Amino acid sequence: MTKKIKVGIVGGTGYTGVELLRLLSQHPHVQLHAITSRKEEGMKVSEMFPNLRGKVDLAFSTPENAALTQCDVVFFATPHGVAMAQAQELLAAGVKVIDLAADFRLQDTAEFEKWYKMPHSCPDILKNQSCYGLVEINREKIAQSQVIGNPGCYPTTIILGLAPVLEAGLVDVSHVVADCKSGVSGAGRKAEVGTLFSEASDNFKAYGVSGHRHHPEITEQLSKLAKEPVQLLFVPHLVPMIRGMLSTIYVKIKPEALQTDFQKLYEERYAKEAFVDVMPAGSLPETRSVRASNQLRIALHRPGNGDTLVIVVVQDNLVKGASGQAVQNMNVLFGLPEDTGLGHVAVLP
Amino acid sequence: MTKKIKVGIVGGTGYTGVELLRLLSQHPHVQLHAITSRKEEGMKVSEMFPNLRGKVDLAFSTPENAALTQCDVVFFATPHGVAMAQAQELLAAGVKVIDLAADFRLQDTAEFEKWYKMPHSCPDILKNQSCYGLVEINREKIAQSQVIGNPGCYPTTIILGLAPVLEAGLVDVSHVVADCKSGVSGAGRKAEVGTLFSEASDNFKAYGVSGHRHHPEITEQLSKLAKEPVQLLFVPHLVPMIRGMLSTIYVKIKPEALQTDFQKLYEERYAKEAFVDVMPAGSLPETRSVRASNQLRIALHRPGNGDTLVIVVVQDNLVKGASGQAVQNMNVLFGLPEDTGLGHVAVLP
Amino acid sequence: MTKKIKVGIVGGTGYTGVELLRLLSQHPHVQLHAITSRKEEGMKVSEMFPNLRGKVDLAFSTPENAALTQCDVVFFATPHGVAMAQAQELLAAGVKVIDLAADFRLQDTAEFEKWYKMPHSCPDILKNQSCYGLVEINREKIAQSQVIGNPGCYPTTIILGLAPVLEAGLVDVSHVVADCKSGVSGAGRKAEVGTLFSEASDNFKAYGVSGHRHHPEITEQLSKLAKEPVQLLFVPHLVPMIRGMLSTIYVKIKPEALQTDFQKLYEERYAKEAFVDVMPAGSLPETRSVRASNQLRIALHRPGNGDTLVIVVVQDNLVKGASGQAVQNMNVLFGLPEDTGLGHVAVLP
Amino acid sequence: MTKKIKVGIVGGTGYTGVELLRLLSQHPHVQLHAITSRKEEGMKVSEMFPNLRGKVDLAFSTPENAALTQCDVVFFATPHGVAMAQAQELLAAGVKVIDLAADFRLQDTAEFEKWYKMPHSCPDILKNQSCYGLVEINREKIAQSQVIGNPGCYPTTIILGLAPVLEAGLVDVSHVVADCKSGVSGAGRKAEVGTLFSEASDNFKAYGVSGHRHHPEITEQLSKLAKEPVQLLFVPHLVPMIRGMLSTIYVKIKPEALQTDFQKLYEERYAKEAFVDVMPAGSLPETRSVRASNQLRIALHRPGNGDTLVIVVVQDNLVKGASGQAVQNMNVLFGLPEDTGLGHVAVLP
Repeated sequence: MTKKIKVGIVGGTGYTGVELLRLLSQHPHVQLHAITSRKEEGMKVSEMFPNLRGKVDLAFSTPENAALTQCDVVFFATPHGVAMAQAQELLAAGVKVIDLAADFRLQDTAEFEKWYKMPHSCPDILKNQSCYGLVEINREKIAQSQVIGNPGCYPTTIILGLAPVLEAGLVDVSHVVADCKSGVSGAGRKAEVGTLFSEASDNFKAYGVSGHRHHPEITEQLSKLAKEPVQLLFVPHLVPMIRGMLSTIYVKIKPEALQTDFQKLYEERYAKEAFVDVMPAGSLPETRSVRASNQLRIALHRPGNGDTLVIVVVQDNLVKGASGQAVQNMNVLFGLPEDTGLGHVAVLP
Repeated sequence: MTKKIKVGIVGGTGYTGVELLRLLSQHPHVQLHAITSRKEEGMKVSEMFPNLRGKVDLAFSTPENAALTQCDVVFFATPHGVAMAQAQELLAAGVKVIDLAADFRLQDTAEFEKWYKMPHSCPDILKNQSCYGLVEINREKIAQSQVIGNPGCYPTTIILGLAPVLEAGLVDVSHVVADCKSGVSGAGRKAEVGTLFSEASDNFKAYGVSGHRHHPEITEQLSKLAKEPVQLLFVPHLVPMIRGMLSTIYVKIKPEALQTDFQKLYEERYAKEAFVDVMPAGSLPETRSVRASNQLRIALHRPGNGDTLVIVVVQDNLVKGASGQAVQNMNVLFGLPEDTGLGHVAVLP
Repeated sequence: MTKKIKVGIVGGTGYTGVELLRLLSQHPHVQLHAITSRKEEGMKVSEMFPNLRGKVDLAFSTPENAALTQCDVVFFATPHGVAMAQAQELLAAGVKVIDLAADFRLQDTAEFEKWYKMPHSCPDILKNQSCYGLVEINREKIAQSQVIGNPGCYPTTIILGLAPVLEAGLVDVSHVVADCKSGVSGAGRKAEVGTLFSEASDNFKAYGVSGHRHHPEITEQLSKLAKEPVQLLFVPHLVPMIRGMLSTIYVKIKPEALQTDFQKLYEERYAKEAFVDVMPAGSLPETRSVRASNQLRIALHRPGNGDTLVIVVVQDNLVKGASGQAVQNMNVLFGLPEDTGLGHVAVLP
Repeated sequence: MTKKIKVGIVGGTGYTGVELLRLLSQHPHVQLHAITSRKEEGMKVSEMFPNLRGKVDLAFSTPENAALTQCDVVFFATPHGVAMAQAQELLAAGVKVIDLAADFRLQDTAEFEKWYKMPHSCPDILKNQSCYGLVEINREKIAQSQVIGNPGCYPTTIILGLAPVLEAGLVDVSHVVADCKSGVSGAGRKAEVGTLFSEASDNFKAYGVSGHRHHPEITEQLSKLAKEPVQLLFVPHLVPMIRGMLSTIYVKIKPEALQTDFQKLYEERYAKEAFVDVMPAGSLPETRSVRASNQLRIALHRPGNGDTLVIVVVQDNLVKGASGQAVQNMNVLFGLPEDTGLGHVAVLP
């Protein structure tokens, strides 16, 4: 392939933005065309993110000057609501859109409006031209889509963690517990007291117990896989580490499924997936085993050989949980091998 | 009270040992008599633990030289098996024993032998003279006992977190999930690769999923409270912080109990407890809110007002989860106000 | 002493504020009278700082409602400029003032105006009624003063680290290097990107190399001790830890002083100081040895027995470097034993 | 280039070992041939280092079975003394050697024996066939050598930080201060109490003040550059972060050199270097700006435009300070573009 993919990034001043730049600047088939930030217009991205010094020479431009309609694909690393406001114009120009925010995740616009406190401005695009960008579930539909709703970080771990048993109908969907733990970078690069080092370090807490925006996204996808409504208890927690996410999922095995070889089920389901690693039975995955890589690892446990399956899933929330997954989606959209530019070995220690 | 309690500590080179020294050296009614470590004989404790410089003048002595039988009480901050080997002699001399290890926790010696790989050497003392030292549950029996089995850290959070609903019979005991997270100090001060800074920092993992020594201790106590066997799924995790423990407990409310005011139940159950703080409904307790203090805080949640109660419990694993609780037991044993020497305000930030 | 000191705190929503509350709520001779925050009026301090739950029952009040003139002493845990605006009125009412900001640190008001970009509003008070509150240097003058300028955190370590050799005239004052490292809490509880967990964790950097507000404060005091101008190179660095400060100070010994027993000099200079610990020769002080305590520890090194003295100093920046020192000043102001309410053993691990 | 370099690694169970594997497994011209560990024979490297799952399929073999003489190059990621014991045999077989330990760093064998407590077993090879592997200083000689002594981590920062001014003779070499700070991974993957998470986290300390093995290595190289003996005060400190090293270097400018444009001097000296980034004047380099990359960044400061030059240098101690530099040396040895396989963008946040 000789022609490079011309890429634009809208809103590159957050962590998913800098992570996109890290990944895309090392991608062999990408040409970085523009990155926008109205507030930082003219500043070199490497001034804000010194890891990019000598690697990315772009400066932030305004959306007006960025000529995004000349791109092949535009990533939105923005707050919710931005992508849907610009999607129409970009699609009209033949540009594909990958939104790392929530505009194209929830298929149910009523749920979207409830959780994100804004009406959905392009339900038509959502319904007819977009796809929920979890490649391991929707690979073929993604390849045909114009707009990708890149999944949330928590949803990625829970959906991939449960897909094999839900697809096969082996567990009780009336009481699924997902106890999830995320590194602080998931909260973004906003100046807020709660995520200051002196508040979040040497500390651990739950949050969003009474309701989290990812909840409807997860249950919508889980229910689709299960072909029936899934009742999910989802409690996220904040871990004093920068990157990484671990979800511990508890499901009851249906009485008639107690003889299932779950290990084999998972290994077969994900045998061809480059980024899903089903670890040997009894493994204890660690978030550092995926740090700065697009891998997601799953381990299965069945304590006391009882009727509960404990599924432990790890990923880097900024890579497989955000920017890496977005690049994986781009690869699918443009017919590239899915792991192009995503072969990084995780950084350990 | 003029006469001081003469205190001995066996095995003070670990984290529960130094924490005992921190607390006891500030306790108004304690005289530190001896601290033993065969390996470090002659070394000043403040050389090993520089926070004690100018505060504790003791040096480590051998058990032989420590004259422990002259103490009023001896704390064992040792590996499992040490306290039960010395209990007989100390009791004969009228010395009370507080064991921070597991020798006097499990009432079922078969379970003890299964998990700790050693026979129990004094089942008589265990049965007739000892008490499980969870003051909020066994206050009166503790006051009459000679030997205290100081509870494990995880058990403390789970038992106190569930006691009100188990005592009242309000929840389904056939499927209780306790997803627990501990700071690294819980693993002790042993030189091991797994708890090196470069391994444990910026990382998160589950461990002991297929079985943890605290599991039988917890179920034994929970079942006693519930007056029926409790089925517990217990998954501990390691958090990159030094101190702190948070347990997220999920229980199904019995259909006939759905109208219960759980907040009120908990507030009343713990109204007189100095060290159990039932936070306002909807609170999100943080481990730092109890750092270096003997407080344990509980918050109740009922997501979507459904049939699952989510109980979040925090404590400092080295204080209420170990050495602070041991001092609390000592206060009860010697008829002191329970919070004597334990009034420290948690250190935040 | 039966009558308690009635204490007010202006601006208690930062880290020095909560640390004052932690210390003062455990001080046996203090009655907390009021704490002000215009922005948080009516909120309980324990809602903002959950470590204070059950320990401090105050709510924030406006300065107008706080009746600060009824206090015996008012602490200012505010930005620069606030204390000097209110000092006059408080002094007129016979209230003593302890300012944790910079208003009463620099004796040279021109320097103050240069670094803090505001005119000094009460140079008379500064000159005639205030004292630089480093007790180990100015104990007697402090006892006679109405207003205390509580020292900055960096200055405390450098001045106490150098006082013995400067007072004795033993080192070359033309080239003093102080390479200092501070935990992140020194940057305060302001919402800023630079001190977010995801920015400051797993990272190390220098800052303020071209000029830091503490520089003139330090040189003013050092020059006073040396009785000649001291040329100081001062480079602060940010350490990914919450509390703690370590200063490594390099000075050349004067040729005629090469035979000095510096260890003895320091031990004698600080022999009676409760909060200055001169460690044995060759010690390597750690910040955790003073965590949450008012201790400051000093160790001396003379690599290769050469002509350079390396002085290593540690303190907790929020205690001896701020709020603990302020309470120490209060004790002196009110004739209490200096260590009253400041006997906490450092928290380790 | 079609033929791959056949690589062996001796002693791959430490952090420099796993980092070599991370880098070499992504290097386009490398074939991993063998990795040895007598203790872990037969274990897959990806079992020990889960980041390598799916990336490196090798298992540890014994030195006997590894057939290292069939390699083109062998890296020694071993304790001191191992490489020199095997160098003779490997050289005889035409295999090049890159030692990440100290055997071929010090040219002065008496100094080697003093600091490493063992005689040097092959002074001939050291003298005639080896080179100190700091590419930016010795590029041409490295290309002609059979054995590379890969520089220590601290030396790399200090030598590259000072080379331009020493080569030009612009500073006073009688009093150079290097105050250095390292992440904990520099201490290796040995099970030791001092580097446990609960000891090293939330803590900061100096170490090796009275003498550190890197001291003679640094002064030997600095003196060679300066063509006169350099007097260095070197104090290393331990930072609670995994990776990263920052050195703050203080030198006095010679009176006759006060007009020098140091910024320009450094920019020109390193203009062609791929891995040395001279940042704009006034920059404040952060260790995270080089995390997991082979970059080293330098910033110059001259506080108050005085006679002291403050040079701040950052690198990742495991990459440019160890394994990345070793790969850079391999590239030079085999005539590859120096940045082959070393183009990783630093991971931020």
